[in-house]
Amino acid sequence: MLKNWNKPQRPEENELEERLIEARGRLFAQQSRIKEHKLPVLILMEGWGAAGKGSVLAKVIKNIDPRFFKVATMDKPTEEEKRKPFLYRYFVRIPEAGKFMFLDGGWMDEITKDRLHEKSNEIQYKERIGSIRRFERQLTDNGYLVLKFFFHISEKEQKKRLDGLREDKNTRWRVSENDSWQNRHYHKCLEAYGQYLDDTNLPAAPWYLVDAKNKKWAELQMLEIMVNGIDTALQNHALATPLLQNTFPLEPIARLSEISLDQTMPEEEYKELLDKYQKRLGELHNELYRKKVPVIMAYEGWDAAGKGGNIKRITGALDPRGYEVHPIASPQPNEKARHYLWRFWNRLPKTGHIAIFDRTWYGRVMVERLEGFCSENDWQRAYNEINEFEHELNEWGAVILKFWVQIDKDTQLMRFQERENTPEKRWKITEEDWRNREKWDQYETAVNEMLQKTNTAYAPWHVLESNDKKYARIKALKIVIEEIEKVL
Amino acid sequence: MLKNWNKPQRPEENELEERLIEARGRLFAQQSRIKEHKLPVLILMEGWGAAGKGSVLAKVIKNIDPRFFKVATMDKPTEEEKRKPFLYRYFVRIPEAGKFMFLDGGWMDEITKDRLHEKSNEIQYKERIGSIRRFERQLTDNGYLVLKFFFHISEKEQKKRLDGLREDKNTRWRVSENDSWQNRHYHKCLEAYGQYLDDTNLPAAPWYLVDAKNKKWAELQMLEIMVNGIDTALQNHALATPLLQNTFPLEPIARLSEISLDQTMPEEEYKELLDKYQKRLGELHNELYRKKVPVIMAYEGWDAAGKGGNIKRITGALDPRGYEVHPIASPQPNEKARHYLWRFWNRLPKTGHIAIFDRTWYGRVMVERLEGFCSENDWQRAYNEINEFEHELNEWGAVILKFWVQIDKDTQLMRFQERENTPEKRWKITEEDWRNREKWDQYETAVNEMLQKTNTAYAPWHVLESNDKKYARIKALKIVIEEIEKVL
Repeated sequence: MLKNWNKPQRPEENELEERLIEARGRLFAQQSRIKEHKLPVLILMEGWGAAGKGSVLAKVIKNIDPRFFKVATMDKPTEEEKRKPFLYRYFVRIPEAGKFMFLDGGWMDEITKDRLHEKSNEIQYKERIGSIRRFERQLTDNGYLVLKFFFHISEKEQKKRLDGLREDKNTRWRVSENDSWQNRHYHKCLEAYGQYLDDTNLPAAPWYLVDAKNKKWAELQMLEIMVNGIDTALQNHALATPLLQNTFPLEPIARLSEISLDQTMPEEEYKELLDKYQKRLGELHNELYRKKVPVIMAYEGWDAAGKGGNIKRITGALDPRGYEVHPIASPQPNEKARHYLWRFWNRLPKTGHIAIFDRTWYGRVMVERLEGFCSENDWQRAYNEINEFEHELNEWGAVILKFWVQIDKDTQLMRFQERENTPEKRWKITEEDWRNREKWDQYETAVNEMLQKTNTAYAPWHVLESNDKKYARIKALKIVIEEIEKVL
Repeated sequence: MLKNWNKPQRPEENELEERLIEARGRLFAQQSRIKEHKLPVLILMEGWGAAGKGSVLAKVIKNIDPRFFKVATMDKPTEEEKRKPFLYRYFVRIPEAGKFMFLDGGWMDEITKDRLHEKSNEIQYKERIGSIRRFERQLTDNGYLVLKFFFHISEKEQKKRLDGLREDKNTRWRVSENDSWQNRHYHKCLEAYGQYLDDTNLPAAPWYLVDAKNKKWAELQMLEIMVNGIDTALQNHALATPLLQNTFPLEPIARLSEISLDQTMPEEEYKELLDKYQKRLGELHNELYRKKVPVIMAYEGWDAAGKGGNIKRITGALDPRGYEVHPIASPQPNEKARHYLWRFWNRLPKTGHIAIFDRTWYGRVMVERLEGFCSENDWQRAYNEINEFEHELNEWGAVILKFWVQIDKDTQLMRFQERENTPEKRWKITEEDWRNREKWDQYETAVNEMLQKTNTAYAPWHVLESNDKKYARIKALKIVIEEIEKVL
């Protein structure tokens, strides 16, 4: 779309002024409706070096109350960010409902730069295109307005601007090495940018080209596209989007009712194996750290199934500087105001570290489904969204361990009663636990569906039979060791 | 997505039966809701030869009342269809609101076949991918549910089936040459199909792969995806979609108020030029016919501007076997029930022929806009949709001539009064004309916007100053001749 693009006709000066005033006014008026409709607006600004993105952005945000927007300038990834999945630094910056986020440079810049400088090959480029398309589709499917601008100037114009900046010693520093490189390789860049725009021009998140030769005109183009896009998005309410077919390799898995729960482990054998496995896991943790392999453990299971104790036996073997346990409760307001996966993206480990989640993103297809915290379309879509999320983690190189801690209904009742009757355990049992127990059958249906639909080859579920907690702990340790050994 | 696809797990026989009964029942129940919600459903079935599309389709339609669906088997284009734009035979077959259309084989089959047999090169392949993406996006943007299935079988399975068919002389005929070719070049085809699926896997019209090794299982996969897709679509109402930026080359054009209307043409000069130009146009018509160039003329203008008389002077020069005039009134019910461009796709000329439209698809952004016959999002989107439509015509090789016949408000009043006072002209003037006249200013705004936003380099507007009808007629003839000469 870039090479064949004919610029829109720039209006006469007085028409331009009039339209600017109108567009600014519309944007100003839209703020409160965006807030009221809880619309999150993500604005991505890409384009040539010296195309004037920054100065147009400065103009645009003058029309918005500072409480309603944020601006992030996306430079090279920091050392910390390099130790997270590629999408991490973008995902954690998505706006909350009712607010704007402006990204000055973003994933396009990063991907095309790597490609142009041959830091990534064609296969990696395609993988990233796939990630981006999934990422942007997840945002728009979840009600985000995503507006993508590319600021375009000609080779000649860019050269003129760069030369101008270089001449003055006060502005010389603003010409980056990359800007100069870009201008020297303008046609090669044009080719790569054009292809990127074509590859990621999604119907719900299309690209908008901005003729950036003149700043006021560029501002008007951006403003008019913004206010039109916002108007369109405000018209949409509770939008249901197609359920995508799972395209990730799924493995068969037993239904909960098929799982036998009569395994036990004698105390002596337990102690011996616990000792042996924890030692081994400790060794592996060092190796993981050295080889910079990230590990993600996800625990789900019935109330009182023994998740906490199980996690303790894992962490008991680990160096506290290299892992973190994340207990997941209901989302905080700032979390609820964003894509439901946002709080998990925020809690990803660095490479070489281990993150353990006590309850997880699977809440979307269990409690949120059953309690009506999201629409049916939302949770139906979530299986695929979660497979996509875990796929990103897998491509990044993470070991993903998902545990379902299984007990039967009688065992749960026994443990609930024991908790109530033991003063020091009483805090562990609440009214809500009893209410959830009443919905056992509905949960069982939801869990079975979850297991079937998210048991991917790259992130399989492991069932821990936990009527005997000792058995379950040893089994978990064994699986953790085996899976980490496979990767190392 | 094709090569890495892992098939979904086939359920046990009794579960399969149960789910089939449920899915069939749901589809049966959905029919009346589809009718009531006026949802048009287009189902595209693609896949390997002998994958069993036909027999699954036969099963699926058993659940639908014959009044609510149509099936079209898309073979090679007929000679007639080859003389229309590539998309023609698909566009004219889109379903009407509230009904199903099943296409057995379609544009994927045509495009990939041409590519595999090197009847099209990479540039043509990419152009067609662009056309398809625009086509499918136009459908979903306009409220269509588009479900695309690819029936997948392995090389071995295909060979087994083809051998089986060949062995029996009663079924031998069913193995086409293309089926055999496909099996011999399975991996090459797999590559091409996979790329096509990736290239056209749009969020609002995604691909669904069907494991077609077992017929009953294939039927279940298709049914379950269908009923889920329909449920999602039924939840959506009055969906506003993003306004795409025009990416086609636009040319500047004057506003109506800037057009001077004092041109006149003396009777004698008129007669002389009319004679001369009509002769020339007659010659060109023969040449057009011989060289198989299609011509599309689109007339828009104020009531009583003189469109009819102008068209008469054009057709006066033409061989009646080679042109057709299409007067466009408000759409018939079967037209209203489809994409607003459908009735124009249906009226396209064959190559070598001329189609003249007296009022056109621009009604969407004039009368439909002003009378509220479509939503604001609909007409705002239409500028781009129309540019896309004309782009298809241009790529096909058509000469596109768009005329705006311009008069001033006083001249209109004079002609209205003359019509009322002349008994044989009185039928030409209606109450509606007077009502439209009251909205002159609103129309002028809409016309100006239309001219600005659809004045593409490949399909520019020509203004005919028609206060003096003779002047306008000669100007039209001259433009027609010039534009046709350019192409020939």
